[in-house]
Amino acid sequence: MKSKAIYYHAGCPVCVGAERGVASAIDTNRYEVEIVHLGESPVRLAEAKAAGVVSVPALLIGESVFHVNFGASLEQLEA
Amino acid sequence: MKSKAIYYHAGCPVCVGAERGVASAIDTNRYEVEIVHLGESPVRLAEAKAAGVVSVPALLIGESVFHVNFGASLEQLEA
Repeated sequence: MKSKAIYYHAGCPVCVGAERGVASAIDTNRYEVEIVHLGESPVRLAEAKAAGVVSVPALLIGESVFHVNFGASLEQLEA
Repeated sequence: MKSKAIYYHAGCPVCVGAERGVASAIDTNRYEVEIVHLGESPVRLAEAKAAGVVSVPALLIGESVFHVNFGASLEQLEA
């Protein structure tokens, strides 16, 4: 069974760079990668926050959150 | 030809977590992943710095640096 990886972003330049660099490098044979744009899908904000995401871009792999560089805080997205 | 990815770390808990979570998720069919422990290989510090790494753990994919969470600054490792 594939592990789940969620890449949360907000379309910012830093986000786009990390998506091209890191998210796209993930092995899709072992991971099911979901890309979530929190600006377009604000309904996913609560779930991201509950998982421990405080800024984007961020990768949630299993239950571990990895913040990759810094584009925007979740608070900025909620404003 | 495979792209080159270098994972710089310093053995810190945050580094170990990111190695297990992110570095190990990279598709090794497309990327040649090198793991560099800057504490054990301080000779690699200058190269990491030149590439734009300011803290560990960090992933250098091609010419792009992605800082993953924060374990220690390069300055701390140089001290």
